[in-house]
Parts: sequence; structure tokens; C-alpha cells
Amino acid sequence: MADFQYEILEEIAVLSENPKGWRKEFNLVSWNGRPAKFDIRDWAPNHEKMGKGVTLSNEEFEALKSALKEM
Amino acid sequence: MADFQYEILEEIAVLSENPKGWRKEFNLVSWNGRPAKFDIRDWAPNHEKMGKGVTLSNEEFEALKSALKEM
Repeated sequence: MADFQYEILEEIAVLSENPKGWRKEFNLVSWNGRPAKFDIRDWAPNHEKMGKGVTLSNEEFEALKSALKEM
Repeated sequence: MADFQYEILEEIAVLSENPKGWRKEFNLVSWNGRPAKFDIRDWAPNHEKMGKGVTLSNEEFEALKSALKEM
């Protein structure tokens, strides 16, 4: 994987934590200095490693929010 | 990757669509016949291919829902 940078701008919610301390988190993350995106992803303790996840644009976030409101 | 099966039980919301027709979707998906999980993932047209995404357990889904309600 190419070198890249990220910054977690806001830790919005921890969705779960497994026995090894990895957490599924919902955060606002800036990738390579770009504007922040919403991000749902697994993280090792202290954010030392990241696992798989998805990023959501503002539009995708709003669509998700609308869907959840109706459930 | 090992052979696996999946079934999309409910298409809850389409979050976005790119120019090639891939959609980011929020669905209920059963993997390998197991109980359905919430799933946010990229899909090719007609669900012929899947991209990266995250699955959420019921507990993770409820935590996400609670966080979104406060935003």
C-alpha cells in the first residue's frame, strides 16, 4: 500500500469492542489532508492499526441518516 | 478468497451511485446462511460484484443509530 496520512478529527461513537481491544468506530477522518469524511472502521487499541471500513461523503451520510430515522 | 455465499434480504437504502453504476448501499445481508447483518458496501450494477464494506451486528447498528440521532 502506498504511503498515506490520516487524521481522526472527531471520535463520534464506539460501536463495539472485541476481546483483543479492537474497536469498531464511527469517526470523522481526514485522509491525506483532504476534507474530513465520515468513517466506520475497525481500529486497534490507540488507533495504532486500522482495519477494513467504509468512508461516507456528506451526501452518503445524510442518506444513511434519513434511512435510519425511518427504522 | 474462499468460496462463500450471500443473500441480500432487504435493500434498505441506496446511499450513492457513481458514473459506472456502482452503488453504495445499506442492506440486510446474510453471509453463508448465517443470520442477517446490516451492511454498508459498494455494489456493481445488479449486485454482480461487491466492493469493500462493513457489516454491523444488531448492537453495532443500534449504537450507530443512537449516535446519528444526536447529530
